[in-house]
Amino acid sequence: MEVMRDAAITINPKRLHESFLVSAGIGTLPNGGLSRLALSDADKVMRDTFVRWLEEAGLAVRVDDFGNIYGRREGKDKEAAAILIGSHLDTQPQGGKYDGIIGVLSALEVVRTLNDHGIETLRPIEIVNFTNEEGARFEPPMLGSGGVAQIFEEEFVWSREDREGIRFGDELKRIGYAGEKANRAKNIHRYVELHIEQGPVLEHEGISVAAVEGIQGMTWLEVKLKGQVDHAGPTPMSMRKDALVAAAKMITAIQQTAKEIDETATTTVGRISVLPGVVNCVPGEVVFSVDIRHFDDGLREKMIEIIREKISTIAAVEQVEIEIKTLWDIRSTQFSQEIVELVLEAASRYGYSARKMVSGAGHDAKYMNDIVPSGMIFVPSVGGKSHCEEEYTHWEDVVKGANVLLHVVRSLADK
Amino acid sequence: MEVMRDAAITINPKRLHESFLVSAGIGTLPNGGLSRLALSDADKVMRDTFVRWLEEAGLAVRVDDFGNIYGRREGKDKEAAAILIGSHLDTQPQGGKYDGIIGVLSALEVVRTLNDHGIETLRPIEIVNFTNEEGARFEPPMLGSGGVAQIFEEEFVWSREDREGIRFGDELKRIGYAGEKANRAKNIHRYVELHIEQGPVLEHEGISVAAVEGIQGMTWLEVKLKGQVDHAGPTPMSMRKDALVAAAKMITAIQQTAKEIDETATTTVGRISVLPGVVNCVPGEVVFSVDIRHFDDGLREKMIEIIREKISTIAAVEQVEIEIKTLWDIRSTQFSQEIVELVLEAASRYGYSARKMVSGAGHDAKYMNDIVPSGMIFVPSVGGKSHCEEEYTHWEDVVKGANVLLHVVRSLADK
Repeated sequence: MEVMRDAAITINPKRLHESFLVSAGIGTLPNGGLSRLALSDADKVMRDTFVRWLEEAGLAVRVDDFGNIYGRREGKDKEAAAILIGSHLDTQPQGGKYDGIIGVLSALEVVRTLNDHGIETLRPIEIVNFTNEEGARFEPPMLGSGGVAQIFEEEFVWSREDREGIRFGDELKRIGYAGEKANRAKNIHRYVELHIEQGPVLEHEGISVAAVEGIQGMTWLEVKLKGQVDHAGPTPMSMRKDALVAAAKMITAIQQTAKEIDETATTTVGRISVLPGVVNCVPGEVVFSVDIRHFDDGLREKMIEIIREKISTIAAVEQVEIEIKTLWDIRSTQFSQEIVELVLEAASRYGYSARKMVSGAGHDAKYMNDIVPSGMIFVPSVGGKSHCEEEYTHWEDVVKGANVLLHVVRSLADK
Repeated sequence: MEVMRDAAITINPKRLHESFLVSAGIGTLPNGGLSRLALSDADKVMRDTFVRWLEEAGLAVRVDDFGNIYGRREGKDKEAAAILIGSHLDTQPQGGKYDGIIGVLSALEVVRTLNDHGIETLRPIEIVNFTNEEGARFEPPMLGSGGVAQIFEEEFVWSREDREGIRFGDELKRIGYAGEKANRAKNIHRYVELHIEQGPVLEHEGISVAAVEGIQGMTWLEVKLKGQVDHAGPTPMSMRKDALVAAAKMITAIQQTAKEIDETATTTVGRISVLPGVVNCVPGEVVFSVDIRHFDDGLREKMIEIIREKISTIAAVEQVEIEIKTLWDIRSTQFSQEIVELVLEAASRYGYSARKMVSGAGHDAKYMNDIVPSGMIFVPSVGGKSHCEEEYTHWEDVVKGANVLLHVVRSLADK
């Protein structure tokens, strides 16, 4: 009986939408997107608004030394480890209204809903807005959550500079969000984050909610080819060492490799440059990037091995020199299986279509998972678009995601 | 008997080398190359020296309205159409010491040799230095010969501007080489030009001299592909419209097309750009160039057709939109068969290895051939290199080329 009554509790879609519209008005772009770079004036306005909302919801607000903002709702057991929920309120320079934002606002709505119903939880619940998740202004991304997870030191984070040479630390002070190290998230039981998928799978399959099993491991390679610059006219095909022809064959082989592994493997060549880059010159040098992802680290390593072998063979056949550098290599993240099950269970109770899936992109939950069992809920991105003004999620899917978050939080907070 | 005695006449290699060294000292670069852009101060010094040499050889010097310099040696029949020989003395900004220059200096050496032997020819012989063959300072290339061939009007040529906005006509006046329209080459019987190959074929085959049958026809296409930008992580391979993967398959197919036609066909993709050009983004847009060449215009058109068909099919399979533009399209040039035979005959008489070949690059002879039967003699380029400081031709090959030019000129001038 208890369980059945609980399942009937839902968030207030109208109130959530009002908060969403307020956010959508801060840093608005002409085509409906947002430009709200971390620690910018727009970010400050959003933060001030968010803090007010936290206070209005009766939460204890604090800010840590990375500018992460927390709002704490006490539990029946004040000593118990808290349930942390949230995401980020910053955007790309030409970003959307959903990415990160709906995770923070849904977390707030979950607490507002618990308040509406006068529901006390055993564990405290904390809402968080992580600083600079996008990494669009200060690189690398996820500085706030990475700081909490002790991936980055305060000194490193504060010394990051944007393109104008402005330091993270100086901007944090300027907008009034340089808080205390003692305020960092601690004594946390679980972290849960609602986010847009940023890919086309859920929309394509007509599914509303995903339980995220983890984040793919990722390797970035840089491949440099040296052939020989020649004039296009007088050099017979058989006497050329054409670095771009070699690269073309490699790009095809790299794409093929992902397809041969399984349907979740991805390989992407996103960047290529050619020297001298002249219409009537046989290319002498080509540099291109390779992005390789898989949830299974063993299969990702196998892909890297196959790609290295294939492209080295092509280089030999095409008589170009090859140099392969690893730019980045990160293992996959395995989220809490308990939270995956809770998400699926919640979707089932509310009658929402749901599936498990793996995230191809990084999120604050990635770093949080290093220090506490974490999980994520995805809602569909129309056309798979994100990081652009066209980014869009049907409002009913946002509401479904928020209801699932509500259920998951209640389950975790009472254990 | 007459013929055998004539074949024994050779140019003076030492004198030719001395002139070559003087030229190599005007506009010298650190690594042995030359920077002698058309109508620059260095070009003026070279022109002044060249005019002095013409006068010292007893030639009547004149300059036309394109700045082309002529030196005329009268024939027994002053009314007869003249034999015009020469090339150009300007270079690329980081060019070599041979390209064009050995054609002009060998022409001068041919006349000096005729003077040494007191040989009179039936027809007049004229030496020419064409202005701005390289097109490195004023575009398009071959303005001087194109002007003479009435491809370009005087007004067009004079109004060309370099990158600093300086006009061709103003520079021509500044350096004192704005001559008369009446001085343009006229009443010409044949035009013959000695030049470096600029390709690797002669060196590769160990051959000293080539009789150039003509210049390949050439087509430049620009191919624009529109796929869909997606995040590399969350977008399954099967749901992508990757413009670079499509381009890679096209580049391979374009290379294959040349190989399938015959060993003289060439196709080159020299320039490619990708948007957004980010490591973790599936490329949404790619633009690349295609350079297609063949001596047989019919086969070139067939190649264009095959390429259009192949890449349109690939575009359909890869689900990208395709747009193909023709940037440039010029028919092949067929040089005088008589001169081809004379070159081969000369090589044979001097005991030089020789072959016929087709030029992949444009030359002044291309435009001259529009108004008078023309021909070219090629000597090897070590490593196929030109338009760079490393450009090099073994001196003995230059001498062989000059001797062949001598023989060809004598044959033509006495007919």
